[in-house]
Amino acid sequence: MKSGKFQLVLRVVFFFVFSISLLTCCLTQSARADEGMWTFNNFPSKNVKAKYGFDPSQAWLDHVRNSSLRIAQGCSASFISPNGLVMTNHHCVVDCEEQLSTAQENLVEAGFSAESADQERKCPDLELDQLIEIGDVTKEVEAALSGKTGDAANKALHAEEARLQQTCGTDPGVRCDVVSLYHGGVYNLYHYKRYTDVRLVFAPEFAVAQFGGDPDNFNFPRFDFDIGLLRAYEDGKPVASHDYLRWSPDGSKANELVFVPGNPGGTSRQLTISQLEFLRDKSFPFLMPALAEYRGELEEFMKRGPEQEREAHEDDFFVANSFKANFGRQAALLDPEFFATKVQQEQKLRSAVADNPKLAKDASAWNEISEIQKVRAKLYTRYGDLNGLLRAGLVGDAVSLVRAATERTKPNSERLPDYTDQALVRLRGRLAAPIPIHKDLQELTLAYALTTTRRDLGADDPFVRKMLGDESPEQLADRLMNGTHLDDPKVREALYDGGQAAIDASNDALIRFVVSLDPDLRAVRKEYEDQVVAPTRSDAERIANARFAVYGTSVDPDATFTLRLSYGSVKGFEDAQGHLVEPYTTIGGLFHRGTGAPPYDLPKSWLEAKPSLNMETPMNLSTTNDIIGGNSGSPLINSKAEVVGLIFDGNIFSLGGDFGYDAAQNRAVAVDSRALLEGLQKVYHLDRIVEEINSAR
Amino acid sequence: MKSGKFQLVLRVVFFFVFSISLLTCCLTQSARADEGMWTFNNFPSKNVKAKYGFDPSQAWLDHVRNSSLRIAQGCSASFISPNGLVMTNHHCVVDCEEQLSTAQENLVEAGFSAESADQERKCPDLELDQLIEIGDVTKEVEAALSGKTGDAANKALHAEEARLQQTCGTDPGVRCDVVSLYHGGVYNLYHYKRYTDVRLVFAPEFAVAQFGGDPDNFNFPRFDFDIGLLRAYEDGKPVASHDYLRWSPDGSKANELVFVPGNPGGTSRQLTISQLEFLRDKSFPFLMPALAEYRGELEEFMKRGPEQEREAHEDDFFVANSFKANFGRQAALLDPEFFATKVQQEQKLRSAVADNPKLAKDASAWNEISEIQKVRAKLYTRYGDLNGLLRAGLVGDAVSLVRAATERTKPNSERLPDYTDQALVRLRGRLAAPIPIHKDLQELTLAYALTTTRRDLGADDPFVRKMLGDESPEQLADRLMNGTHLDDPKVREALYDGGQAAIDASNDALIRFVVSLDPDLRAVRKEYEDQVVAPTRSDAERIANARFAVYGTSVDPDATFTLRLSYGSVKGFEDAQGHLVEPYTTIGGLFHRGTGAPPYDLPKSWLEAKPSLNMETPMNLSTTNDIIGGNSGSPLINSKAEVVGLIFDGNIFSLGGDFGYDAAQNRAVAVDSRALLEGLQKVYHLDRIVEEINSAR
Repeated sequence: MKSGKFQLVLRVVFFFVFSISLLTCCLTQSARADEGMWTFNNFPSKNVKAKYGFDPSQAWLDHVRNSSLRIAQGCSASFISPNGLVMTNHHCVVDCEEQLSTAQENLVEAGFSAESADQERKCPDLELDQLIEIGDVTKEVEAALSGKTGDAANKALHAEEARLQQTCGTDPGVRCDVVSLYHGGVYNLYHYKRYTDVRLVFAPEFAVAQFGGDPDNFNFPRFDFDIGLLRAYEDGKPVASHDYLRWSPDGSKANELVFVPGNPGGTSRQLTISQLEFLRDKSFPFLMPALAEYRGELEEFMKRGPEQEREAHEDDFFVANSFKANFGRQAALLDPEFFATKVQQEQKLRSAVADNPKLAKDASAWNEISEIQKVRAKLYTRYGDLNGLLRAGLVGDAVSLVRAATERTKPNSERLPDYTDQALVRLRGRLAAPIPIHKDLQELTLAYALTTTRRDLGADDPFVRKMLGDESPEQLADRLMNGTHLDDPKVREALYDGGQAAIDASNDALIRFVVSLDPDLRAVRKEYEDQVVAPTRSDAERIANARFAVYGTSVDPDATFTLRLSYGSVKGFEDAQGHLVEPYTTIGGLFHRGTGAPPYDLPKSWLEAKPSLNMETPMNLSTTNDIIGGNSGSPLINSKAEVVGLIFDGNIFSLGGDFGYDAAQNRAVAVDSRALLEGLQKVYHLDRIVEEINSAR
Repeated sequence: MKSGKFQLVLRVVFFFVFSISLLTCCLTQSARADEGMWTFNNFPSKNVKAKYGFDPSQAWLDHVRNSSLRIAQGCSASFISPNGLVMTNHHCVVDCEEQLSTAQENLVEAGFSAESADQERKCPDLELDQLIEIGDVTKEVEAALSGKTGDAANKALHAEEARLQQTCGTDPGVRCDVVSLYHGGVYNLYHYKRYTDVRLVFAPEFAVAQFGGDPDNFNFPRFDFDIGLLRAYEDGKPVASHDYLRWSPDGSKANELVFVPGNPGGTSRQLTISQLEFLRDKSFPFLMPALAEYRGELEEFMKRGPEQEREAHEDDFFVANSFKANFGRQAALLDPEFFATKVQQEQKLRSAVADNPKLAKDASAWNEISEIQKVRAKLYTRYGDLNGLLRAGLVGDAVSLVRAATERTKPNSERLPDYTDQALVRLRGRLAAPIPIHKDLQELTLAYALTTTRRDLGADDPFVRKMLGDESPEQLADRLMNGTHLDDPKVREALYDGGQAAIDASNDALIRFVVSLDPDLRAVRKEYEDQVVAPTRSDAERIANARFAVYGTSVDPDATFTLRLSYGSVKGFEDAQGHLVEPYTTIGGLFHRGTGAPPYDLPKSWLEAKPSLNMETPMNLSTTNDIIGGNSGSPLINSKAEVVGLIFDGNIFSLGGDFGYDAAQNRAVAVDSRALLEGLQKVYHLDRIVEEINSAR
């Protein structure tokens, strides 16, 4: 897990700061902060009612749930018309824009507007998931796992998950995932409607969508027009989206109650102290320089010319974002006061467990997890490096092809989890997608992965010697990239469909490279899963059950990139210098901040439209909603479930949210719904879409 | 201090790791480990006698001291003939090679041999210092500082240092430095003979000098031919070096007593726990990604073409080295057992101080230093970023020119310490040196420094706004590099000699940039020095005196890039997997390890000479000597003061040596003197030099 580019939840804008005094709140229901990424089947309506005077009904919750979407690649979204119009962030559609761009037509830079329905362009590789139903399968999974450890436990879990997935059938329009909440305390089966024909409707120019770029990222006041519009199709027609979010006529105001439905990618609030120490002392000191070095390579690569800049633009953006987010996460763990609060919290729970005779059997779980961290420390570097290598661009495709061929010969329940019948639906779609591959950039990434693997494991490591032979990382990356045709989607498709025979017969350099290394890669993965993942899951389940016994389900589960609902209010905060920051910025502020030099250069469209724009229109706003990476693209809605904004970031204090919510300063950041309409109308003249939104109110 | 490239002691190969159980040794004289970087006026001859049966006489010590040299840019060296022949590492002359290279003649890649005396080529910017005398000036400095704090203390110290320097006169051939030992417990005046006409005699090809490159750096077994030969000249003639080290006829053998005279750059063994925590939790998390990102940019820059590779080769090498060294230092501080040992050690000293009524007045020093760390945390980022900016290539020259003009108008004792009459001798020489400047690489470095400054301080920071105006970092770097002529040494020399009038009249873009920012840069420096440096020095002096009272001077002072002597023996060690590593490698091992791909590609000269070489000749060896970055180029000598090797690295366990010496695994790594002769004779046929060495025995 060396480099952010290869991790789903690192591809989304928010992450995890310097929260000082928090989480003590969770022990009582009184004076509760707006903390929590709640599942729809355990939403604390009572708390909302008590604090804000509004009690969301089941119908309200169902409507919001059905209107909410997940972008499988790592974002959130929502239906905003009955005709399948989908709102998300620009940075959630930039992948699609990049894939639709050519050397002649740079959609990321120029933006994109479909002036008519037939100009809406299919995104080569974008999946929307709509959550339909949540079933509790805790008993089934626990029964399957009962008494098993290590390899046996992993196999049993994978088999049971495959079986449960299969109960939803194999319709490509359906997706079922077994979701482990509370690190194994609860297992749910999430049943989704899956949309794979998703078309790009609108994206503004990168310069205004990401105005302020890296320096302004995770900061507020902010001035971004970070919107992307998509449309879901089925059978070549826009889907009829029965549930969708209407647009608020008035927007929001300070202190108003607001909700965020979305898919936070992951939090670590329920990890034990020894796990947090592992992150702080082992994981981040490896991750941060790895991200930084890769970023440096990308940035310099982009200076070679406009084509290289276009090719690497998106990767650079996500790596820079991931770096900043993780820097904040790391800083939270390095803050001695914050860490002391986490320690106190754990001690409190452990005392409660020790004092309760019924729970005493679980008291050893913390120490066991602490012991597992020692094993993890030994296995982590190799496991992380090999994962990074496996995901380095086309190598990842080669691994998928080689493994899919082998795994498909096994019964569904005995396969690696990424290769169940359900998972193969998406895998084949991804492999066949006509995504442009930039071999020079791929070579950079592969050489980097090979170099860091040798650096971390040592030149004399048997795996490294096997991997490199007598070649240098650069020579090998060059030879593999020159000797592969996996950049051609037809080749990938044919290899997939040809199965094991096609793989055996292939002379493709990357396929042969992966075939020779896959036994080693699988062994390293199995070792880590047997010795770290399985025992950690077992102990985490015991801790989760102890926590339920002490606190009930008044604590939300750590985020899992599944649909959650957070409540809060429109609010400013005190910045690091102690100044009060107001919750709204204005369109006027955007123009004031534009220096003309990147990343503060407004596009021509905005400069030309300036005279027609109302400078007082609220541009961005900050709210107390508890969100994290993966929430990008979530709608911000009021108590009538009307759109008042579009979440796209958090402030600098939100970054520690991975480990705990700081009510005083943690803020979500959204584009104001009024700025969205003003821009779509007066800057982009997207009348048919504005009409679609307005008529759907 | 963001980037290693700008720090003297980061430009040398060794640095500071996973020492587990150490330093407890220092509390008794019995069973003493080979720890210590001893000054020549406090060498523990008794300990050496007790452990190894050899008692170095004063004459022996004087002879070794007079034979030892410092390369002012950050290395160690020694005279090895009566005619001024100087031995050091290849990586200590690579700067000179790079400066003498052109697009047509790449000395770094091809190596260099002066076949006759008149082919020896002057290094444009290399200073050798020979330590002549050490005087104790503790009383003078303490009297000057007495009762003063903050700004007043800094001014008094600078004035007294300038006065003491001046007692040596202003002969350019003389250098006097006030050296603060034990972080201020002792002040010495070091009197050097200074050589500035230093010529390159021999350097092997980079490929064999740094065989194994980054992956093998800080590892052992090792196979490097890391030697560079220079000659000191005066008045156009080789200097007569009365004291020089003779070559051992037999080399060394396992367990033999060996010494290393050299100039270790810096250690942090006497820092308090709060200072170590600052390094661990604040400093490294900033430094490591900064080094990594810059490294990524350099590596990708080098891929643009052979000329860019040549230009950035040396910087890349030093940044990669600095990264690996600092990664090891950080790992030592992140090791909980190691850190616990440091905590215990401090607690022991503090208890002893608290229990002694005479010392009780100093008991508060630790808490005061802890409080200072809070101030430091607030000021550190800005101070570090601005220092990085100040040193970003030609900006550094512009700062030197602007400040030298101002400072020279003041009395010597009132100047910034870098601009005393003594310091100006070297400064003018450096500015006038005909060093090739690669503007594209300079622009990369400057843009990087501007970008990280904005990133760390924020786009809205008043200094950042003043620095950038409406330009992006890239635009500004481009404009400054296109608008400066400081790459011409004649221009730099004229601006220096022209003084304030020349600076005022200059339209050079970089000069104007620095003139506009210098008041801010000075203010930030002064704030940090007044609020952090001065009070820390005062408290560190109290701790040093308390330590003297408890332990006497049986503890060596932290390294200060001044001449030290370490003793030890030729010894292998147990590696991380528990295997015993033998202390010698062989020339045969070198050929066995050569894959043909960089960094394991032997040059043609070695491949051709292979049949004539004795494969059993010892190539590299490991010893227990306590060394650190700055010791690069130190001779390894036996008890007859004969050369048996040439220090060039430490093993991976030596990296924690910054914070403590681990007798079990910390090893210095040297080229064996027998391999040196074998290579010079049979590979390079450097008969006149071999003859010079042999006849001087």
